[in-house]
Amino acid sequence: MKKTVLALSGGMDSTTLLAMLLDQGDEVHAMIFYYGSKHNRWENQAARHVINYYQHKDFPLSEYSIDLSGVMQHFQSDLLLTGGDIPEGHYEDENMKQTVVPGRNMIFASILAGLAESVGATQIALGVHSGDHHIYPDCRKEFIKTLDSAVYLSSGKTVEVTTPLIDDDKTSILLRGYGLNVPYQLTRTCYKDQELSCGRCGSCNERLEAFDAIGEHDPIPYEVPLGVM
Amino acid sequence: MKKTVLALSGGMDSTTLLAMLLDQGDEVHAMIFYYGSKHNRWENQAARHVINYYQHKDFPLSEYSIDLSGVMQHFQSDLLLTGGDIPEGHYEDENMKQTVVPGRNMIFASILAGLAESVGATQIALGVHSGDHHIYPDCRKEFIKTLDSAVYLSSGKTVEVTTPLIDDDKTSILLRGYGLNVPYQLTRTCYKDQELSCGRCGSCNERLEAFDAIGEHDPIPYEVPLGVM
Repeated sequence: MKKTVLALSGGMDSTTLLAMLLDQGDEVHAMIFYYGSKHNRWENQAARHVINYYQHKDFPLSEYSIDLSGVMQHFQSDLLLTGGDIPEGHYEDENMKQTVVPGRNMIFASILAGLAESVGATQIALGVHSGDHHIYPDCRKEFIKTLDSAVYLSSGKTVEVTTPLIDDDKTSILLRGYGLNVPYQLTRTCYKDQELSCGRCGSCNERLEAFDAIGEHDPIPYEVPLGVM
Repeated sequence: MKKTVLALSGGMDSTTLLAMLLDQGDEVHAMIFYYGSKHNRWENQAARHVINYYQHKDFPLSEYSIDLSGVMQHFQSDLLLTGGDIPEGHYEDENMKQTVVPGRNMIFASILAGLAESVGATQIALGVHSGDHHIYPDCRKEFIKTLDSAVYLSSGKTVEVTTPLIDDDKTSILLRGYGLNVPYQLTRTCYKDQELSCGRCGSCNERLEAFDAIGEHDPIPYEVPLGVM
Protein backbone atom coordinates (compact mmCIF):
# COMPACT_ATOMS: atom_id res chain seq x y z
CA MET A 1 0.00 0.00 0.00
CA LYS A 2 1.40 3.38 -1.02
CA LYS A 3 1.79 5.91 1.78
CA THR A 4 1.04 9.52 0.88
CA VAL A 5 1.27 12.68 2.97
CA LEU A 6 -1.35 15.24 1.92
CA ALA A 7 -1.88 18.90 2.82
CA LEU A 8 -5.63 19.08 3.52
CA SER A 9 -7.00 22.62 3.70
CA GLY A 10 -10.67 21.73 3.87
CA GLY A 11 -11.33 23.37 0.50
CA MET A 12 -12.65 21.73 -2.69
CA ASP A 13 -9.28 20.94 -4.27
CA SER A 14 -7.48 19.12 -1.48
CA THR A 15 -10.68 17.34 -0.44
CA THR A 16 -11.13 16.07 -4.01
CA LEU A 17 -7.47 15.02 -4.03
CA LEU A 18 -7.98 13.15 -0.74
CA ALA A 19 -10.90 11.26 -2.30
CA MET A 20 -8.76 10.38 -5.34
CA LEU A 21 -5.89 9.08 -3.20
CA LEU A 22 -8.20 6.99 -1.00
CA ASP A 23 -10.03 5.70 -4.09
CA GLN A 24 -6.75 4.43 -5.55
CA GLY A 25 -5.96 2.65 -2.29
CA ASP A 26 -3.32 4.93 -0.72
CA GLU A 27 -2.74 5.10 3.03
CA VAL A 28 -3.12 8.85 3.55
CA HIS A 29 -1.47 10.96 6.25
CA ALA A 30 -3.41 14.24 6.14
CA MET A 31 -1.81 17.40 7.50
CA ILE A 32 -3.92 20.36 8.58
CA PHE A 33 -1.89 23.58 8.68
CA TYR A 34 -2.96 26.51 10.80
CA TYR A 35 -0.92 29.46 9.55
CA GLY A 36 -2.82 32.48 10.78
CA SER A 37 -4.95 33.28 7.74
CA LYS A 38 -8.32 34.92 8.32
CA HIS A 39 -10.30 31.91 7.12
CA ASN A 40 -8.00 29.34 8.71
CA ARG A 41 -10.09 28.29 11.70
CA TRP A 42 -13.10 27.80 9.46
CA GLU A 43 -11.27 25.81 6.79
CA ASN A 44 -9.43 23.76 9.43
CA GLN A 45 -12.78 22.88 10.98
CA ALA A 46 -13.96 21.79 7.52
CA ALA A 47 -10.81 19.68 7.06
CA ARG A 48 -11.51 17.89 10.36
CA HIS A 49 -15.10 17.17 9.31
CA VAL A 50 -13.84 15.73 6.01
CA ILE A 51 -11.33 13.52 7.83
CA ASN A 52 -14.01 12.28 10.26
CA TYR A 53 -16.26 11.51 7.30
CA TYR A 54 -13.70 9.25 5.64
CA GLN A 55 -12.44 7.72 8.89
CA HIS A 56 -16.00 6.64 9.71
CA LYS A 57 -16.02 4.85 6.36
CA ASP A 58 -12.88 2.99 7.56
CA PHE A 59 -10.44 4.43 5.05
CA PRO A 60 -6.73 4.32 6.08
CA LEU A 61 -6.44 7.99 6.99
CA SER A 62 -4.51 9.66 9.82
CA GLU A 63 -4.74 13.30 10.90
CA TYR A 64 -1.87 15.62 11.84
CA SER A 65 -2.00 19.31 12.59
CA ILE A 66 0.67 21.95 12.92
CA ASP A 67 0.42 25.59 13.98
CA LEU A 68 2.53 27.79 11.70
CA SER A 69 1.10 31.15 12.83
CA GLY A 70 4.33 31.85 14.75
CA VAL A 71 6.37 31.02 11.64
CA MET A 72 4.39 33.51 9.56
CA GLN A 73 4.25 36.28 12.17
CA HIS A 74 6.76 38.40 10.20
CA PHE A 75 5.17 37.74 6.78
CA GLN A 76 3.21 40.34 4.80
CA SER A 77 -0.14 39.24 3.31
CA ASP A 78 -3.74 40.42 3.47
CA LEU A 79 -4.74 36.77 3.74
CA LEU A 80 -3.24 36.73 7.25
CA LEU A 81 -4.93 38.02 10.40
CA THR A 82 -1.98 40.43 10.69
CA GLY A 83 -2.73 41.91 7.21
CA GLY A 84 -5.36 44.22 5.69
CA ASP A 85 -8.90 43.44 4.48
CA ILE A 86 -9.65 40.61 2.06
CA PRO A 87 -10.45 42.19 -1.33
CA GLU A 88 -13.73 41.36 -3.07
CA GLY A 89 -13.97 40.50 -6.77
CA HIS A 90 -12.25 37.95 -8.98
CA TYR A 91 -8.96 36.09 -8.69
CA GLU A 92 -7.73 37.63 -11.91
CA ASP A 93 -7.94 41.09 -10.39
CA GLU A 94 -4.70 42.88 -9.53
CA ASN A 95 -5.83 43.41 -5.92
CA MET A 96 -5.98 39.65 -5.26
CA LYS A 97 -2.14 39.69 -5.24
CA GLN A 98 -2.43 41.12 -1.72
CA THR A 99 -3.62 37.68 -0.62
CA VAL A 100 -0.44 35.85 -1.67
CA VAL A 101 1.37 34.43 1.39
CA PRO A 102 5.10 34.46 0.51
CA GLY A 103 6.49 30.95 0.08
CA ARG A 104 3.45 29.22 1.55
CA ASN A 105 3.44 26.14 -0.66
CA MET A 106 7.18 25.64 -0.33
CA ILE A 107 6.96 25.87 3.47
CA PHE A 108 4.03 23.43 3.48
CA ALA A 109 5.80 21.02 1.09
CA SER A 110 9.08 20.99 2.99
CA ILE A 111 7.28 20.14 6.25
CA LEU A 112 5.20 17.45 4.53
CA ALA A 113 8.42 15.99 3.10
CA GLY A 114 10.00 15.80 6.55
CA LEU A 115 6.87 14.07 7.87
CA ALA A 116 6.89 11.70 4.87
CA GLU A 117 10.44 10.60 5.69
CA SER A 118 9.46 10.09 9.33
CA VAL A 119 6.38 7.93 8.59
CA GLY A 120 7.93 6.07 5.63
CA ALA A 121 5.77 7.71 2.93
CA THR A 122 7.11 7.93 -0.62
CA GLN A 123 5.16 10.95 -1.82
CA ILE A 124 3.60 14.20 -0.76
CA ALA A 125 0.44 15.39 -2.50
CA LEU A 126 -0.55 19.01 -3.09
CA GLY A 127 -3.91 20.16 -4.49
CA VAL A 128 -2.53 22.94 -6.70
CA HIS A 129 -4.31 23.42 -10.02
CA SER A 130 -4.14 25.54 -13.15
CA GLY A 131 -6.55 28.16 -11.89
CA ASP A 132 -4.08 29.13 -9.15
CA HIS A 133 -1.23 29.96 -11.50
CA HIS A 134 -1.83 33.53 -12.46
CA ILE A 135 -1.25 35.32 -9.18
CA TYR A 136 0.49 32.61 -7.15
CA PRO A 137 4.05 31.85 -8.36
CA ASP A 138 4.22 28.88 -5.95
CA CYS A 139 1.35 27.12 -7.79
CA ARG A 140 2.94 27.27 -11.27
CA LYS A 141 4.10 24.08 -12.92
CA GLU A 142 7.69 25.33 -13.31
CA PHE A 143 7.88 25.75 -9.53
CA ILE A 144 6.19 22.42 -8.76
CA LYS A 145 8.64 20.54 -11.00
CA THR A 146 11.62 22.14 -9.27
CA LEU A 147 10.03 21.55 -5.87
CA ASP A 148 9.74 17.86 -6.76
CA SER A 149 13.49 17.69 -7.48
CA ALA A 150 14.35 19.59 -4.31
CA VAL A 151 12.19 17.33 -2.11
CA TYR A 152 13.64 14.24 -3.79
CA LEU A 153 17.24 15.31 -3.15
CA SER A 154 16.54 16.66 0.33
CA SER A 155 15.02 13.34 1.36
CA GLY A 156 17.94 11.22 0.15
CA LYS A 157 15.91 10.24 -2.94
CA THR A 158 13.01 8.70 -1.02
CA VAL A 159 10.15 11.23 -1.34
CA GLU A 160 8.50 12.76 -4.43
CA VAL A 161 5.85 15.43 -5.03
CA THR A 162 2.58 14.57 -6.74
CA THR A 163 0.05 17.15 -7.98
CA PRO A 164 -2.64 15.22 -9.91
CA LEU A 165 -4.83 18.34 -10.28
CA ILE A 166 -2.15 20.63 -11.71
CA ASP A 167 -3.71 20.78 -15.19
CA ASP A 168 -7.30 20.91 -13.89
CA ASP A 169 -9.47 23.95 -13.41
CA LYS A 170 -12.13 24.20 -10.68
CA THR A 171 -14.79 22.80 -13.00
CA SER A 172 -12.87 19.66 -13.92
CA ILE A 173 -11.96 19.19 -10.26
CA LEU A 174 -15.65 19.27 -9.35
CA LEU A 175 -16.44 16.79 -12.12
CA ARG A 176 -13.80 14.41 -10.76
CA GLY A 177 -15.19 14.87 -7.27
CA TYR A 178 -18.80 14.19 -8.22
CA GLY A 179 -17.61 10.91 -9.71
CA LEU A 180 -16.14 10.00 -6.32
CA ASN A 181 -19.01 11.25 -4.14
CA VAL A 182 -16.84 13.87 -2.44
CA PRO A 183 -18.71 15.40 0.55
CA TYR A 184 -18.59 18.99 -0.74
CA GLN A 185 -21.20 19.93 1.85
CA LEU A 186 -18.37 19.65 4.42
CA THR A 187 -15.84 21.79 2.53
CA ARG A 188 -15.08 25.49 2.97
CA THR A 189 -13.66 27.95 0.43
CA CYS A 190 -14.38 31.54 1.56
CA TYR A 191 -11.37 33.72 2.47
CA LYS A 192 -13.22 35.74 5.14
CA ASP A 193 -13.14 35.26 8.90
CA GLN A 194 -16.82 34.41 9.41
CA GLU A 195 -18.84 31.23 9.84
CA LEU A 196 -21.04 31.68 6.77
CA SER A 197 -19.24 31.94 3.43
CA CYS A 198 -19.53 35.48 2.03
CA GLY A 199 -20.20 34.60 -1.63
CA ARG A 200 -18.38 37.75 -2.79
CA CYS A 201 -14.61 37.22 -2.35
CA GLY A 202 -12.49 35.88 -5.24
CA SER A 203 -12.43 32.47 -3.66
CA CYS A 204 -16.24 32.22 -3.23
CA ASN A 205 -16.83 33.55 -6.75
CA GLU A 206 -14.58 30.93 -8.29
CA ARG A 207 -16.31 28.15 -6.35
CA LEU A 208 -19.81 29.28 -7.27
CA GLU A 209 -18.86 29.63 -10.95
CA ALA A 210 -17.56 26.06 -10.97
CA PHE A 211 -20.77 24.64 -9.48
CA ASP A 212 -22.71 26.70 -12.00
CA ALA A 213 -20.58 25.35 -14.85
CA ILE A 214 -21.39 21.73 -14.01
CA GLY A 215 -25.06 22.49 -13.34
CA GLU A 216 -24.97 21.52 -9.65
CA HIS A 217 -26.15 23.40 -6.59
CA ASP A 218 -23.37 24.28 -4.12
CA PRO A 219 -24.50 22.42 -0.96
CA ILE A 220 -22.96 24.87 1.56
CA PRO A 221 -24.92 27.82 3.01
CA TYR A 222 -23.95 31.40 2.10
CA GLU A 223 -24.39 34.69 3.91
CA VAL A 224 -26.57 36.00 1.06
CA PRO A 225 -29.04 33.54 -0.52
CA LEU A 226 -27.57 32.27 -3.79
CA GLY A 227 -30.28 33.61 -6.12
CA VAL A 228 -29.76 37.16 -4.81
CA MET A 229 -26.04 37.40 -5.57
CA MET B 1 22.81 47.93 0.34
CA LYS B 2 22.07 44.26 -0.25
CA LYS B 3 19.57 42.70 2.16
CA THR B 4 20.26 39.10 3.18
CA VAL B 5 18.27 36.75 5.40
CA LEU B 6 20.58 34.33 7.26
CA ALA B 7 19.89 31.23 9.35
CA LEU B 8 22.12 31.75 12.41
CA SER B 9 22.56 28.64 14.55
CA GLY B 10 25.23 29.99 16.87
CA GLY B 11 27.79 27.49 15.57
CA MET B 12 31.09 28.20 13.82
CA ASP B 13 29.80 28.04 10.24
CA SER B 14 26.83 30.38 10.31
CA THR B 15 28.69 32.79 12.63
CA THR B 16 31.57 32.94 10.15
CA LEU B 17 29.07 33.48 7.34
CA LEU B 18 27.44 36.31 9.30
CA ALA B 19 30.86 37.96 9.65
CA MET B 20 31.48 37.60 5.89
CA LEU B 21 28.11 39.13 4.97
CA LEU B 22 28.56 42.06 7.36
CA ASP B 23 32.14 42.54 6.14
CA GLN B 24 30.92 42.87 2.55
CA GLY B 25 28.35 45.47 3.64
CA ASP B 26 25.08 43.49 3.61
CA GLU B 27 22.11 44.41 5.79
CA VAL B 28 21.56 41.09 7.57
CA HIS B 29 18.27 39.72 8.91
CA ALA B 30 19.35 36.84 11.16
CA MET B 31 16.86 34.10 11.96
CA ILE B 32 17.30 31.89 15.04
CA PHE B 33 15.34 28.64 14.72
CA TYR B 34 14.32 26.66 17.78
CA TYR B 35 13.34 23.23 16.48
CA GLY B 36 13.50 21.01 19.52
CA SER B 37 17.01 19.57 19.16
CA LYS B 38 18.85 18.62 22.33
CA HIS B 39 21.49 21.34 21.93
CA ASN B 40 19.05 23.99 20.66
CA ARG B 41 18.68 26.14 23.74
CA TRP B 42 22.45 26.29 24.10
CA GLU B 43 23.19 27.13 20.49
CA ASN B 44 20.32 29.66 20.35
CA GLN B 45 21.81 31.36 23.40
CA ALA B 46 25.14 31.47 21.54
CA ALA B 47 23.42 32.92 18.45
CA ARG B 48 21.93 35.72 20.57
CA HIS B 49 25.35 36.51 22.07
CA VAL B 50 26.84 36.69 18.57
CA ILE B 51 24.07 39.04 17.41
CA ASN B 52 24.52 41.28 20.47
CA TYR B 53 28.26 41.36 19.76
CA TYR B 54 27.79 42.67 16.21
CA GLN B 55 24.89 44.97 17.06
CA HIS B 56 27.07 46.67 19.68
CA LYS B 57 29.55 47.34 16.90
CA ASP B 58 26.71 49.06 14.99
CA PHE B 59 26.44 46.62 12.11
CA PRO B 60 23.05 46.60 10.26
CA LEU B 61 21.78 43.38 11.83
CA SER B 62 18.24 42.44 12.94
CA GLU B 63 17.21 39.38 14.95
CA TYR B 64 14.20 37.12 14.35
CA SER B 65 13.33 33.89 16.08
CA ILE B 66 10.84 31.16 15.33
CA ASP B 67 9.85 28.09 17.35
CA LEU B 68 9.59 25.03 15.07
CA SER B 69 9.42 22.42 17.83
CA GLY B 70 5.69 21.93 17.14
CA VAL B 71 6.42 21.49 13.44
CA MET B 72 8.94 18.76 14.15
CA GLN B 73 6.94 16.97 16.84
CA HIS B 74 6.19 14.05 14.48
CA PHE B 75 9.74 13.81 13.08
CA GLN B 76 12.17 10.99 13.87
CA SER B 77 15.75 11.98 14.80
CA ASP B 78 18.10 11.37 17.70
CA LEU B 79 19.13 15.02 17.43
CA LEU B 80 15.68 15.96 18.75
CA LEU B 81 14.62 15.92 22.40
CA THR B 82 11.98 13.37 21.36
CA GLY B 83 14.67 11.00 20.00
CA GLY B 84 17.33 8.67 21.46
CA ASP B 85 20.82 9.49 22.81
CA ILE B 86 23.34 11.51 20.79
CA PRO B 87 26.01 9.07 19.55
CA GLU B 88 29.69 9.69 20.35
CA GLY B 89 32.47 9.40 17.76
CA HIS B 90 33.06 10.93 14.33
CA TYR B 91 30.69 12.34 11.72
CA GLU B 92 31.79 9.73 9.23
CA ASP B 93 30.47 6.98 11.49
CA GLU B 94 27.31 5.16 10.44
CA ASN B 95 25.60 5.92 13.75
CA MET B 96 25.74 9.67 13.13
CA LYS B 97 22.95 9.16 10.58
CA GLN B 98 20.59 8.93 13.56
CA THR B 99 21.15 12.68 14.03
CA VAL B 100 19.76 13.66 10.61
CA VAL B 101 16.57 15.73 10.99
CA PRO B 102 14.43 14.97 7.89
CA GLY B 103 14.17 17.95 5.57
CA ARG B 104 15.58 20.43 8.08
CA ASN B 105 17.46 22.67 5.64
CA MET B 106 14.58 22.77 3.19
CA ILE B 107 12.15 23.75 5.95
CA PHE B 108 14.56 26.43 7.19
CA ALA B 109 15.21 27.73 3.65
CA SER B 110 11.54 27.93 2.69
CA ILE B 111 10.75 29.97 5.82
CA LEU B 112 13.77 32.23 5.25
CA ALA B 113 12.59 32.76 1.67
CA GLY B 114 9.11 33.82 2.85
CA LEU B 115 10.72 36.24 5.31
CA ALA B 116 13.02 37.54 2.56
CA GLU B 117 10.03 38.39 0.37
CA SER B 118 8.34 40.12 3.30
CA VAL B 119 11.36 42.32 4.23
CA GLY B 120 12.47 42.95 0.63
CA ALA B 121 15.66 40.87 0.80
CA THR B 122 17.05 39.39 -2.43
CA GLN B 123 18.90 36.43 -0.98
CA ILE B 124 18.91 33.87 1.81
CA ALA B 125 22.23 32.59 3.14
CA LEU B 126 22.91 29.13 4.54
CA GLY B 127 26.13 28.02 6.22
CA VAL B 128 26.28 24.55 4.65
CA HIS B 129 29.78 23.29 3.80
CA SER B 130 31.52 20.31 2.23
CA GLY B 131 32.08 18.53 5.55
CA ASP B 132 28.32 18.14 5.98
CA HIS B 133 27.69 16.27 2.73
CA HIS B 134 28.36 12.69 3.60
CA ILE B 135 25.49 11.95 5.96
CA TYR B 136 23.19 14.92 5.29
CA PRO B 137 21.50 14.84 1.86
CA ASP B 138 20.14 18.34 2.44
CA CYS B 139 23.68 19.80 2.62
CA ARG B 140 24.85 18.39 -0.75
CA LYS B 141 25.51 20.74 -3.62
CA GLU B 142 23.01 18.98 -5.92
CA PHE B 143 20.27 19.72 -3.39
CA ILE B 144 21.39 23.31 -2.78
CA LYS B 145 21.38 24.10 -6.52
CA THR B 146 17.83 22.74 -6.87
CA LEU B 147 16.76 24.55 -3.70
CA ASP B 148 18.04 27.78 -5.25
CA SER B 149 15.83 27.25 -8.32
CA ALA B 150 12.82 26.34 -6.18
CA VAL B 151 13.18 29.42 -3.96
CA TYR B 152 13.66 31.62 -7.02
CA LEU B 153 10.48 30.37 -8.69
CA SER B 154 8.45 30.26 -5.46
CA SER B 155 9.28 33.90 -4.78
CA GLY B 156 8.24 35.16 -8.20
CA LYS B 157 11.93 35.39 -9.22
CA THR B 158 12.94 37.77 -6.44
CA VAL B 159 14.91 35.66 -3.95
CA GLU B 160 18.02 33.48 -4.43
CA VAL B 161 20.00 31.10 -2.20
CA THR B 162 23.64 31.79 -1.40
CA THR B 163 25.99 29.30 0.28
CA PRO B 164 29.47 30.85 0.19
CA LEU B 165 30.94 28.08 2.40
CA ILE B 166 29.68 25.14 0.34
CA ASP B 167 33.14 24.11 -0.88
CA ASP B 168 34.87 24.83 2.44
CA ASP B 169 35.75 22.38 5.19
CA LYS B 170 35.79 23.34 8.87
CA THR B 171 39.48 24.26 8.69
CA SER B 172 39.10 26.69 5.81
CA ILE B 173 36.02 28.17 7.49
CA LEU B 174 38.08 28.83 10.62
CA LEU B 175 40.84 30.40 8.52
CA ARG B 176 38.30 32.75 6.92
CA GLY B 177 36.87 33.57 10.34
CA TYR B 178 40.24 34.36 11.93
CA GLY B 179 40.80 36.85 9.10
CA LEU B 180 37.55 38.58 10.11
CA ASN B 181 38.01 38.42 13.90
CA VAL B 182 34.96 36.21 14.38
CA PRO B 183 34.11 35.93 18.11
CA TYR B 184 34.44 32.13 18.28
CA GLN B 185 34.47 32.37 22.08
CA LEU B 186 30.72 33.07 21.80
CA THR B 187 29.89 30.16 19.47
CA ARG B 188 28.56 26.72 20.40
CA THR B 189 28.95 23.43 18.50
CA CYS B 190 28.25 20.49 20.86
CA TYR B 191 25.18 18.32 20.12
CA LYS B 192 24.47 17.47 23.78
CA ASP B 193 21.93 19.08 26.07
CA GLN B 194 24.35 20.52 28.64
CA GLU B 195 25.92 23.91 29.29
CA LEU B 196 29.55 22.80 28.88
CA SER B 197 30.45 21.29 25.51
CA CYS B 198 31.19 17.58 25.87
CA GLY B 199 34.27 17.34 23.62
CA ARG B 200 33.33 13.79 22.57
CA CYS B 201 30.36 13.95 20.14
CA GLY B 202 30.93 14.06 16.38
CA SER B 203 30.24 17.76 16.34
CA CYS B 204 32.76 18.60 19.12
CA ASN B 205 35.39 16.33 17.57
CA GLU B 206 35.14 18.05 14.21
CA ARG B 207 35.42 21.48 15.81
CA LEU B 208 38.44 20.57 17.92
CA GLU B 209 40.21 18.99 14.93
CA ALA B 210 39.71 22.18 12.93
CA PHE B 211 41.22 24.37 15.66
CA ASP B 212 44.08 21.89 15.94
CA ALA B 213 44.62 22.01 12.15
CA ILE B 214 45.09 25.79 12.12
CA GLY B 215 47.23 25.73 15.30
CA GLU B 216 44.80 27.78 17.40
CA HIS B 217 43.35 27.10 20.85
CA ASP B 218 39.55 26.69 20.88
CA PRO B 219 38.45 29.56 23.19
CA ILE B 220 35.32 27.84 24.58
CA PRO B 221 35.41 25.76 27.80
CA TYR B 222 34.87 21.98 27.64
CA GLU B 223 33.55 19.47 30.19
CA VAL B 224 36.89 17.64 30.14
CA PRO B 225 40.08 19.77 30.00
CA LEU B 226 41.37 19.77 26.40
CA GLY B 227 44.75 18.11 27.13
CA VAL B 228 43.06 15.09 28.74
CA MET B 229 40.79 14.14 25.78
